[in-house]
Amino acid sequence: MLQSKLFTKTLREAPSDEQSQSAKLLLRAGFVDKVAAGLYTMLPLGFLVLQKIERIIVEEMDKLGAQRVLMTGLVPKKNWDATGRWQVLDDLFKLESRNKDAYGLGVTHEEVITPIAKKFVFSYKDLPFSAYQIQTKFRDELRAKSGLLRTREFLMKDLYSFHSDQKDLDEFYQKVKKAYFKIFNRAGLRGKTYFTCASGGTFSEFSHEFQALTPAGEDIIFICAKCGLAINREIKDKYPQCPECGAGDFKEEKSIEVGNIFQLGTKFSDAFSLEYSAKTGQKKAVIMACYGIGLQRLMGAVVEANNDGSGIVWPKAVAPFDIHLLELPSKNASFEKRIRATVKKIYADLQKQGIEVLYDDRSDKSVGEKFKDCDLIGIPVRIVVSERTLEKKSVEIKNRNSKAAKLVKISELAKLEF
Amino acid sequence: MLQSKLFTKTLREAPSDEQSQSAKLLLRAGFVDKVAAGLYTMLPLGFLVLQKIERIIVEEMDKLGAQRVLMTGLVPKKNWDATGRWQVLDDLFKLESRNKDAYGLGVTHEEVITPIAKKFVFSYKDLPFSAYQIQTKFRDELRAKSGLLRTREFLMKDLYSFHSDQKDLDEFYQKVKKAYFKIFNRAGLRGKTYFTCASGGTFSEFSHEFQALTPAGEDIIFICAKCGLAINREIKDKYPQCPECGAGDFKEEKSIEVGNIFQLGTKFSDAFSLEYSAKTGQKKAVIMACYGIGLQRLMGAVVEANNDGSGIVWPKAVAPFDIHLLELPSKNASFEKRIRATVKKIYADLQKQGIEVLYDDRSDKSVGEKFKDCDLIGIPVRIVVSERTLEKKSVEIKNRNSKAAKLVKISELAKLEF
Repeated sequence: MLQSKLFTKTLREAPSDEQSQSAKLLLRAGFVDKVAAGLYTMLPLGFLVLQKIERIIVEEMDKLGAQRVLMTGLVPKKNWDATGRWQVLDDLFKLESRNKDAYGLGVTHEEVITPIAKKFVFSYKDLPFSAYQIQTKFRDELRAKSGLLRTREFLMKDLYSFHSDQKDLDEFYQKVKKAYFKIFNRAGLRGKTYFTCASGGTFSEFSHEFQALTPAGEDIIFICAKCGLAINREIKDKYPQCPECGAGDFKEEKSIEVGNIFQLGTKFSDAFSLEYSAKTGQKKAVIMACYGIGLQRLMGAVVEANNDGSGIVWPKAVAPFDIHLLELPSKNASFEKRIRATVKKIYADLQKQGIEVLYDDRSDKSVGEKFKDCDLIGIPVRIVVSERTLEKKSVEIKNRNSKAAKLVKISELAKLEF
Repeated sequence: MLQSKLFTKTLREAPSDEQSQSAKLLLRAGFVDKVAAGLYTMLPLGFLVLQKIERIIVEEMDKLGAQRVLMTGLVPKKNWDATGRWQVLDDLFKLESRNKDAYGLGVTHEEVITPIAKKFVFSYKDLPFSAYQIQTKFRDELRAKSGLLRTREFLMKDLYSFHSDQKDLDEFYQKVKKAYFKIFNRAGLRGKTYFTCASGGTFSEFSHEFQALTPAGEDIIFICAKCGLAINREIKDKYPQCPECGAGDFKEEKSIEVGNIFQLGTKFSDAFSLEYSAKTGQKKAVIMACYGIGLQRLMGAVVEANNDGSGIVWPKAVAPFDIHLLELPSKNASFEKRIRATVKKIYADLQKQGIEVLYDDRSDKSVGEKFKDCDLIGIPVRIVVSERTLEKKSVEIKNRNSKAAKLVKISELAKLEF
């Protein structure tokens, strides 16, 4: 993409009420715009990142055999009443239509997917199955001051699984755990995400969170020095020893929850009478679990974990582009023409190879401004073409996460892997 | 995909309150589920169709150079107040947070994109540009009885363009008009969609709708017999002659609006003081236009236009799969084994070619049930493997939209184009 065509620009300052480092950087670099507290528009660069995160999640969900659906944000009050959650959920946005129909805006969708399952599940032969969506969630957060880490509206991947017995659920639960680690590793949180025991629910000792280490996190976790299992502060008192390995040595860290998985047992199937006929003919309640990842929060956490003083340092897999190609101005008009012709050719060649390039073709920016914007936006590889490099029939290549730049002959460019 | 794994099933009957033919078919075939009046979940088959429609739209938007963003459904009251639409829009869902912040759920997003543009547009050099999103819209419809054709929540592609002068806007408007026809033609409404003059707005004589002919339509249009321009009934009295060619011979038709494009002039840029510096240095208001397509409505209109007594007849470009591969049961156990082995091989080979196949591997369904489900679901090509075809080392191929079936040697299958 030509940077001159990008309708956003980098900004000198983030809004003064913005506290988290990730939000400040994403706002200044033009990835997101703040509509109001807890509400962010994804601008073109931000949307590209969101799409890459979505693709990673979809690939891992597909590998699990989960089937993709799309439920509505408006969920009728009667669905919430069936489970009693209309009264219980503090963060449920409630509204009424002109016809006086009452709705809650979905915070999660057990109240919708369970009645759907009831229409299609009759026998043990119809189980197990799992369905997921990537869909807009709404939460009436009292405090939404952590940028993308806690918003009033966001895309969530929510997966629901339906099983005939606990053993089957346990097996699938383990598969999802592995898929979640793949997602967080691929997205740029490798080695920074901890499987964390948190307060359970009715049907299992724990629920499980995936906590990513970050100083901006709102959670505190205790990581077992021996086996790496983490325990959320909220239940730490109850577990002086690691529930996994029995060790008693923990490291305290600040973190942010990037995913969670819950065993729901029969809570929702009981509420909606979701039953199946077992082989014996006996009617039994379906056993359920649910699994969530907030996409914008994951994006924020990736930025929290990957930035430096100058800007964002995108991991390749979720970067908006693979390469930031910079054309530097020259005072010599004939050189300027040659630079432009060379960069255009490189831009076309890279794109033909399927490489995604942001080409800084802006002619009204200084060298300093171009480098500053480039560091702020944080694309993994920077390629610079200037008078100096052109004299050596070369370009300068620098990775965003290293200080060393190297000159590479233009004729050698096609052989490089980006 | 294995049909035995699909968690949805076809249903004998649609809900009794469902009136439109498209909704009845989509519900019975398991593409959508009805949550409440005007609210539909996209089930796995429906989501596949929606994704194909989305891909067509995205391709055509990209060709226009439009940049993709994602705005929030929650739009603060102050944004609506700036344009006065908080009071004016009847179908705006309004709600309040626990903090007593008031929001409207976006029916369109001029109130969000215009303040964003204000942050990035300073000079004539920053114009023109266009931004679009595919995002969830909410509308408090009094009557939502037409299935997917009029819902309270749906995905909309909304595009906004920003220009320095009317000529530039007019040129882009014509490009979008062409892109819209491409979208509707590609999605299966070729020859059925009419460019229609409708009541304007403040800044142009007309707004323009794209009306698709269907008996289930809620609109009436008058199509000029000479030039093909249509006029919406709401303004027909004012135009006894065609505004395009002057002819006076019209054909009256029922139709459904599948897209609309509006010249907004400076209505929204005035409200938010969105100005640019012209070459002369003079400050001028930015001129805007907006362009919408409702995805679920388009899906509904495609089904209205493409069905027969037995079910849906999906156009290839938006079909959930390319081929429905049917394995028929046999009373002869050894034949049954051979059939299964053959179909599995065909299934694998087709998928290797990149062809999307729904494989009806269900062993508990009769021949009649399989054929009935196949017609109802409406995938463009049916391939049947049975005892009879296997004896001739063949499969039976039938297009959904023709009655004739033909036998094709299995060895010849790889040469066919689907």
